[in-house]
Formats: sequence, C-alpha cells, structure tokens
Amino acid sequence: MAIWNNMDTLASFEALSRTKAVNLAEVMSGENGAARVEKYSVPMAEGLVYNYAAKQVDDEILDKLVKLAEEARLAEKFELLYNGEVINTGEKRLVLHHLTRGQLGNTVTADGVDKRAFYVEQQQRIAEFANKVHAGQITNAAGEKFTTVVQIGIGGSDLGPRAMYLALENWAKRNNTLKMEAKFISNVDPDDAAAVLNSVDVAHSLFVLVSKSGTTLETLTNESFVKDALKNAGLDASRHMVAVTSETSPLAKSDDYLAAFFMDDYIGGRYSSTSAVGGAVLSLAFGPEVFAQFLDGAARADEAARNKDVLSNAAMLDALIGVYERNVLGYLCTAVLPYSQALSRFPAHLQQLDMESNGKSVNRFGEPVSYSTGPVIFGEPGTNGQHSFYQLLHQGTDIVPLQFIGFQDSQIGTDVVIQGSTSQKKLCANVAAQIVAFACGKSDDNRNKNFAGGRPSSIIIGDQLTPASLGALLAHFENKVMFQGFVWNINSFDQEGVQLGKVLAKRVLAHETEGALKAYSDLFHI
Amino acid sequence: MAIWNNMDTLASFEALSRTKAVNLAEVMSGENGAARVEKYSVPMAEGLVYNYAAKQVDDEILDKLVKLAEEARLAEKFELLYNGEVINTGEKRLVLHHLTRGQLGNTVTADGVDKRAFYVEQQQRIAEFANKVHAGQITNAAGEKFTTVVQIGIGGSDLGPRAMYLALENWAKRNNTLKMEAKFISNVDPDDAAAVLNSVDVAHSLFVLVSKSGTTLETLTNESFVKDALKNAGLDASRHMVAVTSETSPLAKSDDYLAAFFMDDYIGGRYSSTSAVGGAVLSLAFGPEVFAQFLDGAARADEAARNKDVLSNAAMLDALIGVYERNVLGYLCTAVLPYSQALSRFPAHLQQLDMESNGKSVNRFGEPVSYSTGPVIFGEPGTNGQHSFYQLLHQGTDIVPLQFIGFQDSQIGTDVVIQGSTSQKKLCANVAAQIVAFACGKSDDNRNKNFAGGRPSSIIIGDQLTPASLGALLAHFENKVMFQGFVWNINSFDQEGVQLGKVLAKRVLAHETEGALKAYSDLFHI
Repeated sequence: MAIWNNMDTLASFEALSRTKAVNLAEVMSGENGAARVEKYSVPMAEGLVYNYAAKQVDDEILDKLVKLAEEARLAEKFELLYNGEVINTGEKRLVLHHLTRGQLGNTVTADGVDKRAFYVEQQQRIAEFANKVHAGQITNAAGEKFTTVVQIGIGGSDLGPRAMYLALENWAKRNNTLKMEAKFISNVDPDDAAAVLNSVDVAHSLFVLVSKSGTTLETLTNESFVKDALKNAGLDASRHMVAVTSETSPLAKSDDYLAAFFMDDYIGGRYSSTSAVGGAVLSLAFGPEVFAQFLDGAARADEAARNKDVLSNAAMLDALIGVYERNVLGYLCTAVLPYSQALSRFPAHLQQLDMESNGKSVNRFGEPVSYSTGPVIFGEPGTNGQHSFYQLLHQGTDIVPLQFIGFQDSQIGTDVVIQGSTSQKKLCANVAAQIVAFACGKSDDNRNKNFAGGRPSSIIIGDQLTPASLGALLAHFENKVMFQGFVWNINSFDQEGVQLGKVLAKRVLAHETEGALKAYSDLFHI
Repeated sequence: MAIWNNMDTLASFEALSRTKAVNLAEVMSGENGAARVEKYSVPMAEGLVYNYAAKQVDDEILDKLVKLAEEARLAEKFELLYNGEVINTGEKRLVLHHLTRGQLGNTVTADGVDKRAFYVEQQQRIAEFANKVHAGQITNAAGEKFTTVVQIGIGGSDLGPRAMYLALENWAKRNNTLKMEAKFISNVDPDDAAAVLNSVDVAHSLFVLVSKSGTTLETLTNESFVKDALKNAGLDASRHMVAVTSETSPLAKSDDYLAAFFMDDYIGGRYSSTSAVGGAVLSLAFGPEVFAQFLDGAARADEAARNKDVLSNAAMLDALIGVYERNVLGYLCTAVLPYSQALSRFPAHLQQLDMESNGKSVNRFGEPVSYSTGPVIFGEPGTNGQHSFYQLLHQGTDIVPLQFIGFQDSQIGTDVVIQGSTSQKKLCANVAAQIVAFACGKSDDNRNKNFAGGRPSSIIIGDQLTPASLGALLAHFENKVMFQGFVWNINSFDQEGVQLGKVLAKRVLAHETEGALKAYSDLFHI
C-alpha cells in the first residue's frame, strides 16, 4: 500500500510549490492570449471542450502538475478503484459508481455477484417498470395513468437527480420525450412536503422513496407525510409508491411498494445519479432511452478520465489545477458558473459532490493532514450572477477561481433578435467577455472603476446540453473530485462529518440534553 | 468629513486585534455553555431573537467591538444616511431604501420632492392598481381576470422579490391571501423566458417589467420575448404589461404599459425589495395589506438598528462580529443556513446583498484598502445542507462561520408525528444540535470520526415566518451589511465591478474583438 502518500511528502509537489506564479493579466493580453486559448484546450467526451487558458498556469507549471499526477499515481489509483479495490477505507467499501455506466476494467465481484451485471439488471427492471407506467399497464387503482413522479429523498438522493431533471426538462419537452413531470420532496421541514403535495394531483402521482439504508429520518418522515395525503384522498398508498434502496434494507421486501429497485453500499449518495437513485425518477420522467443516453455520456467521460496522458485528460488536469490553486496559490473557494438556466441546480449538486467528498482533515489512514483539502463550492447561473455576486469576484479583496460552463445552442430553440443578436448569442458573448474581464482586468485612473484582473477561470464548452453531454459533464466533475482526493491522500467516499449532528438531534428529541444543547432546545420550546 | 477613516487607522481595531481568541469548544461546554446561550442573546423586531452564544466572542472581545462601533461612529453614519447625506460617494447619490418603509429621521428632500412621500405615493398607486386587478376592474382585453403575475427583471429586480415571494407563498395560501401566482424571468438565456412562458397561461398573465434605467440588456431582451409570445397568442401586449422604472427612463411614459410605477436612483437594486421593485409583484401576488405588513416589519428592524447601545442592536452586533471573524480571525466565507424551506432562495438574495455591497477593494475615497472586506456568502436550507456540504463545515481544513435561521412553527401547519415528534420539532432539534456539534465537536480516538469543534455560528430565531418577520429579517441583513461597509470605510452602495463585463460583451456582439476575447468568441462561433 506504499502508493498512498500524503501530498506534502511528494517531491513533485515541492517542485510545484517552487514554480514562479503566472501573471495572468499579462499572459492573457494581446496575441499571446489568443494563442493560449488555442493551446490550453482539451477535448472531452460528447463534444465538450475543457479550456484552461485563463488559469494561472504555464508550460512550466503544467510540467510540474504532470509530474505530480505521475508521482501521486493518479491513473493507477483510478484503475484500482474501478477494478474493485477497497478505496473507501473508512467504511471498508468498494467504490463502484463507474460500473453503473460502463465496464472500465476487470469484472468486479462483490457479495457473490458481478456488480456491473447487477447495476445493469436494476436499470433493466426500472426500464421495464417505466415503460409499463408510460404505456398505462401500471396505473392507479382506478386504472388511470400516472402523470407525475415525486422523488422523496435527501442529500445525494435529491440534489443530483433534481439537478439532472431540471437540466433536461426543457430538452425533453422540446424533443417530445417528457413522459411525466417530476417533483422532489427532501427537507424535514413539513412545509416542503405539504407544498409539493398541494401542487400535484396525488391520485395520478407515483412516489419514489429513496433511501439506501431505509432509515434516513427525513425520508421516512416524508414518506409518512405522503402516505397520510394518499390516505386522506382515499387512495391505497401501496399502489402509488416504489422504493429505491439496498437489498438488505427494511424497505426492500415490503408490501408497501409497487416495486423496489436496488442500489448498494458501493455507491455513495453523491455519486448515485447514474444508479437506481437517479435512474428511477429520470427513467419515469424522460423514458429509459433518455436515461441510457445520459449513462452513455457519463461512460464516455469515464473512459476519457483513464487517459494516462495528463494533458489530454480533462478531469485529471482540472483536478491538478484545482490543487495548485488550493495548495500553492492558497485560494479557498471555487465558483461554478453555468451559463445555462437549465443548470440552475447543478452548482448545488457540485457543492455536495465536492465538499462532502473532500471536506476532510485526515488522510486515508486517519492521520491529520497538514495542508488544505477540498474547497468551498458555490455558484449560480450566468448571466444572473453577473448582476449579483460578480462584484466581489471582480473587485473584492480575495481571489475566487471560477469554473464556467457554456453551450453554443439553447435547448428549447425559441429566441428573439434584439440589437442584431439572439439571446443565445448574448449569453455566449457574456461568458466570453467575463473570462477576459476577470483575467485581464482594465486599469482606470479612477480606482473605483479599476479592475486588477488576474482572476483565474476555466470553461467547459459544448454544443448543447443534451442527456449525453450532461452525463459527460457530471462524470467529469465526479472524476475531478476523485483525482483531487487521490492527490490529497484522503478518503473521498465516506462522510463521517454528518454523524455528530444526527446523534445530538436524536438526543434533543428524546429530551436527553444538558448545557448548551438544552439551552438551545429550550429556545425552540422542544 | 473626518469621520470616514479606514478601519486600520482606528485604535479600537488595533485593540481588538490584540484580544485573546476564544476557545469555543471550551466555553460552550457544560453549564457555562448554557449560561452563554442565555446571556448572548438580543431581541430583534417582530419577535425575532439574535443569539450569538456560539460565536468566538467573550465579554472582553465584545467590549472591544463596542469601542470599535463607537470609534467608527456607526450610529452616527446611519443617521447621516437616513437623513439624506450623499453616502453613495461613487455615484454621488443619497441612499434612501429605509424611507420606503418608514421615516427614521428628518424629512429628506431630493429632486424637489419629499422622498418618503414619493415612495408612499408609489405604494398607494401600486395598491390601487393591485386592488383593481384583484377585483376584476383591470382585466385582459376579453374582460377576464388576471391569474398570474410574471416579473421580468435581473439581479436586484429578481433575487430579492423572488426570495420574498417564495418565503411567503405558502403562508399566503394558508391565510387565503394568495391573489395571484407569481413567476420570474431573469436570465438572458432564451430557455429561461421560453420555459416560464410555456408554464403560464399568457392570456391571463400580467407582466411586470422592472428596470431602473430602462436599458438593462437582459430585461429588455426578455420583454421582447414576452411581447412576441403575447402577439403570437393574438393578444395586445400593452394590456398585459406594467413597468417599474425611474421617472426619467424611456419606459416611464410609454404607451406600451398599462401603468408605470416609480423608483429612483437613491435605491440600489439589491436594496429594492421594499420599493416598487418588490412592491408591484408582491402586492399583486399577496395583496397590498400583506406587502404593508412586510414593510412594517422592515421598519421595526430599521428602528432597532438605530439603537446606540451596541450590545442591544442586533444588526450592529452581527456586523461587528462579522468584522472580527473576517479581519482578526481571517475567515473568508459565511454560510447562511435557514431551517425553513420557504427561505430556499433567501441565501441567494443575501449573496447578492452582501457580496455586491462589500466586495470592494477601495475605500470611499477611491484609495486601496489594506485589509479584507466583504465575505463570500453561500447557503442552502437545512436540513438539506446537512446531507450535503456540512461535511466540509464540520471536518474540512478551513473554518466557515455560520448564520442559522429557524422558526418554532411551520407556515402551512400540516404535520405528522413519527417516532414521537412532529417534522417541525425534528427540524428545530436539528438546528439546535448542529449549533452545538459545530461549536463543541466531539473527540474520538478514530480521527476520522473526530470533530474538533470550534466552528462558530449565530442563529436568528422566530415564532413563524410571516410577512412582518420576513421584513424584519431582510432589514436586519441590509443594516448589517451597511454597518460592515461603514467599518471597512467602503462604499457599499455602488457596483462598478459589473461594468467591464458589460462593455466587453457589447464588443463581442459587435465583432470588435482581438486577442483572447476574439479567441473565446470564436469558440462560441459568435
């Protein structure tokens, strides 16, 4: 196991730390800037391109990043992962979300079964079920078609699937493949479930209950909420619910559900959009064919992430540049800025994916690390953000690296020409302009109107946000986060940091509190 | 003008910097912790309470913060502001958003009119208009009632009003005062307008076009989008649109609108939720009486912010503690975590409010400052965030101060009892538990399960999220941000950082580019 070393023990990291910082405003000026845009560009899966011209790197720094990737043996670690090594050391588990969309390496057997076959089987079961629902072969008790699917889940059972649904909803409408509208209930706040239930026709709604363990407090509470609503409407709840859970969970064999689809312990919640967790709601909403395209896109990106030529591997390069920004340049945050309204909740998903995976202070062996790990992730779609928090990004006292995403074409295709250009062209023009404004700045004698520049960004550009390109985009970030975890030598696949709050909340509800906990409970009259 | 001094010239800041840091885990343990919860609590307007027991402060630090408030003359500066001084030095403008909800001091005259009277007049004009719409006296051309109101605006004309609408939508339904459903179009992405238009019945929709200058690119583009949709539906657009703008804007006297309501240059976009910008859409959605309650709540919070006893002034104290965290403890971010699904977009509004106001590097006189200013703000509702990014907040390598918000009662009132408690109790128990978990941590021999604690938070607690308490909550944060700007000696009321991107985007669309800007334009085939 000697390959797992802390980042600060690597000679290549030491060498990286000694490189000369790039003056971004300078290198991005004039024709040199144009040359960088051409040169610092990597093709990704599904026609996407990762362009990092406006990052604070040069050939010297890139050379050191390549050496870091090699010394940290990133490609080899990825190989170990998809071949079924116990990469999640904290929970002693395999990490198999890649197998939900393809077989990257050897057959992986666990619990006595071929795991790729297991995931494919669940996809097929979901597809059959969804097709029957769409065909009116599975209906409510009155024999009427279900029109709405409501996901009940939280965290990874909510953010990813929700972001993916929103990303494709308009595309599906435009391409006549929106089979059912999807809604989501997540928060234990009773107003969340109540508001969603008020907004749907429960008699024609199918509820997908998602909990790996079958014990998630919020999700079970919201299930009761939904069952009450169904009962109050005179409906048989078991005709309106399916479960997505692990085979060993109490939900797996219950008569309370029309069907149960399975995931397992080898897929973390935040990596589960391509498993049954995303598969059920997305196949019901868009049809299994669309979900399959989404998986194909993710599989192509996974294959691209295996490329051992670091400078041709967008996920690895993106990860390495992030490490350089975090550990050499000292930047804490990264803003994710999709110029696509359809990606309105994609930053919230990446926020979980990244911060829950790499927000750790101990290495894979439980020893404290002495360097910074995962960044704070936030973001909103552009151009909206331009009229909001971009002020600080341009002129604030701290530098926040930026991750732009943009597409040449819109999804719906309806557009207007104003002042000689379409809205879509304006959208693209704005993201192009922002990259240069952040990088180069503009000096002004009035210091209040002065832009220092030097604010790094990268952009992922695609033709259009489709199921396949969305899958590729999602997998890119999953793999980026994984590679960063490898560099930092941390376990990106557990989340012990969520436990303490759960324990204390139970104590509050049981009135077993003292000190500050009791005092806060009293403030809420619990 | 000698009262405007940089923070690092103040003796009290120097003294603050020399205080001994508080060991939060230690002081929050045992009965001392309970005593802090009781002691470090300030009543706010509308029954809200600001509790800062879990912040890294003690009496010594608080004493220094009080001295800083006095030396920086925060109360006096607020007085100057609401009495009509030119506080926005960059744009040479008065800052009058407080006058939209009350008269805090002297009559303020500008442009030859009493500004409080002007804002009240606009509220009354909006109220009359809204009442007529609700009564069916103003209808579409077919004489049918409008059922939906659609706001077209971006930035401050979108985030604040949208967050306020979402915050009160369920409350209004529950209290039978939801008059019209509201929708929002903001992004220049054509899919935003197209999707919203696909989701509404345009024949019964009233569109509120909001642009102070009447020249905002996104908003004018989306107006055209909407006019096309109305025309395609065989409707007369001018029967379906109202404008909210300044009296001098090209929209003010146009025949294209049923009516125009006015704001002015003395109210920044991010402070405009209580002006006609929020007033039109919220009065149409909920009725003018509800909007009036919201204004009253804000007015009460403004009055509370005048309190010269710093330790009894929640907005000032919140601001000062934030300065201590930013400039002495060196924390970059603040997470806003409302335990209320209704506040789902409140963090996005605060993100604009705070980051656009205080993300500045020069002081009021255009001179660079040598200390950190406004923090990065992000957040999502709890308990959702607990299953997402809280991992990093608990166990990441950097400390992120937290701002919790919670309410004892839900808005809708529908609830279920599971395992002996309601969902609402579970929600409250979770926020109480999180505060203590972050502050105190919990040691574990397994370092992976170890929580260091020492992660500071405050909480604002209320009985219920109502129009009045929402108004008070909004004004609290507006005033907090204002006081922080005063301490940092920056101009919190301009936003020059948004200009460069606009200029460059125009150049891209005009094909007047070279270098990197041309290269990025080419990537998008512009």
